[in-house]
Amino acid sequence: MSRFFSSKYSSLIPYTPGEQPKDMEYVKLNTNESPYKPSENVYEAVKKEAEKLHLYSDPEAKIITEKIAKRYGVSPDMVLVTNGSDEVLNFAFMAYGDSQREMLFPEISYGFYTVFADLNVVKYRQVPLKNDFSIDVNDYIAKNTTIVIANPNAPTGLALSRNQIEEIVKSNPNNVVVIDEAYVDFGAESCVDLVHKYENLLVTMTFSKSRSMAGARIGFGIGSKAIINDLNTIKYSTNPYNVNRISQVAGACAIDDDKYYMDNCKKIMESREYTKIELEKMGFMVLNSSANFLFAKSDKISGEELYLKLKENGVLVRHFKAEKIKDFNRITIGTKEQMDIFLKKTKEILEAVK
Amino acid sequence: MSRFFSSKYSSLIPYTPGEQPKDMEYVKLNTNESPYKPSENVYEAVKKEAEKLHLYSDPEAKIITEKIAKRYGVSPDMVLVTNGSDEVLNFAFMAYGDSQREMLFPEISYGFYTVFADLNVVKYRQVPLKNDFSIDVNDYIAKNTTIVIANPNAPTGLALSRNQIEEIVKSNPNNVVVIDEAYVDFGAESCVDLVHKYENLLVTMTFSKSRSMAGARIGFGIGSKAIINDLNTIKYSTNPYNVNRISQVAGACAIDDDKYYMDNCKKIMESREYTKIELEKMGFMVLNSSANFLFAKSDKISGEELYLKLKENGVLVRHFKAEKIKDFNRITIGTKEQMDIFLKKTKEILEAVK
Repeated sequence: MSRFFSSKYSSLIPYTPGEQPKDMEYVKLNTNESPYKPSENVYEAVKKEAEKLHLYSDPEAKIITEKIAKRYGVSPDMVLVTNGSDEVLNFAFMAYGDSQREMLFPEISYGFYTVFADLNVVKYRQVPLKNDFSIDVNDYIAKNTTIVIANPNAPTGLALSRNQIEEIVKSNPNNVVVIDEAYVDFGAESCVDLVHKYENLLVTMTFSKSRSMAGARIGFGIGSKAIINDLNTIKYSTNPYNVNRISQVAGACAIDDDKYYMDNCKKIMESREYTKIELEKMGFMVLNSSANFLFAKSDKISGEELYLKLKENGVLVRHFKAEKIKDFNRITIGTKEQMDIFLKKTKEILEAVK
Repeated sequence: MSRFFSSKYSSLIPYTPGEQPKDMEYVKLNTNESPYKPSENVYEAVKKEAEKLHLYSDPEAKIITEKIAKRYGVSPDMVLVTNGSDEVLNFAFMAYGDSQREMLFPEISYGFYTVFADLNVVKYRQVPLKNDFSIDVNDYIAKNTTIVIANPNAPTGLALSRNQIEEIVKSNPNNVVVIDEAYVDFGAESCVDLVHKYENLLVTMTFSKSRSMAGARIGFGIGSKAIINDLNTIKYSTNPYNVNRISQVAGACAIDDDKYYMDNCKKIMESREYTKIELEKMGFMVLNSSANFLFAKSDKISGEELYLKLKENGVLVRHFKAEKIKDFNRITIGTKEQMDIFLKKTKEILEAVK
């Protein structure tokens, strides 16, 4: 820290992204990327768009915004496209955070929520999960404060139903409820259609997981016009050209090729169920995931030891040190072939520690 | 605004980017883009990189950061690459702004500075320019506060010398001085080498102007390690994957092809001098620009009328309504051919109002 740094941020602890070691080629199951490449249409479109890189991108991101709107059955002024969904989430913490009243989100959830809150001097309370790691809906009913819930939740993978989400949204009519649906395409119920019914609902999504575009940085929020208007005020006060030209085009192609990506999600869900069964055969406790990862623990080896041994063996998974989940690892679902390597290595490691 | 929006931002007036009308093809001289396309190497590199879009971009942006560092004679930990230079500027306002002590910047300058300040609840004072629209260095000597200066300044195009910048930096050793060198490649002296001498200097630059990549959204800051460390704390608390994969590659290519871009800058400077002389022949008062635009006024027609008439005639320039500069228009320098169209239309408009 420099001696000039604002005291506001002096105790800020930044988010730690999943490691990206460059010492060797890993089977990379640690950042919830898709193992499948973008669809064919993307490549030529991207190359062609490069000829226009000397011109600013459309600040309104009109084409991709309209395609997203159509895909989700809303009007374009109910959509905001951002530089990854982290950006729309940060905007939501800015717009609806409060320094007095506690914002609520689950204790075990996306690790960035506490960082966004601290960055924006937002007061918050992390609500413990139930013993089975699920979210207790009652903890969020009629709380009269801003609420953020990842659905499915991360890193557990457990999902609430659309009805449960609706109960939360409905019971907090004077506050925004943010539902972070980054992983919704892998088997959970989306609540996005509820934006027509509840003006206090903001749903955020991303192209990074189900749409094979983590490297393009495209996220979006869908909500009432008034909410999207708020977020646009922040966007135009931060970075009007927030989404570059090429990502706008690549993202638009991905919406056109929706079937390709949704079919990939099905493949990932199949590999997930296969992996879950195989892990259970080895004695793992595996949560019921509706996401593109599994959260699993074994009583034969600590979470950290398994993570380290897998890394030595060329397989990266994600381990979190937080006390309540330190026994687990979060394993991104790759291709069937990648999962077989992971399973084989895990088996070998378990046998060696016996 | 929704009824949920934080009162912090209720009076925020967002930045207005230059218009991008879609009703017809314009000779677009209103957003200071380069008229030249990216270099040949960019296209294949971009297409190839699209195959990796399913993987997150490098949060450290290692390759492009190292290339920038080498190009500017600093170490990589003195460079931060951002999603356009607006992002690094916003980070600087966050990191070095203060709600008590007035940050200083010129009254006539990049219009986003007041927005960044308001967004981050930073107190500020806009220092008037001299009557000739130049910055009075004395206004910034030993002020014991954070200072932001665009050099060359926008929309005037007037530049301070490296020595003048050094006086300002040297005389404010306990505060950060941000020098926004977005337009420096068009004839001004860069002060970037002073980062080795002064730990309180942050220089920001962009690929949007001289490097033909406004659509890629690449900016960067160069400063002492301590300053870059501060800005990284904010980046990792906001959006760790702030620069997408394709822009990182395109930007790296642009540094490799430095000669192509710097030659284009020379062409633009030649067209600028040509345009200036022609405007002066028509009776315009034209400031001495060191940027890729001219700031010019005529006593035969108001700034707004000329802007509107040019637009009717298919030529877009930028007009600002602020009282002190409302007689002027800011004219981006395009190709020689584009400038000839602009000059011809301007001549016709002036003749018609006689």
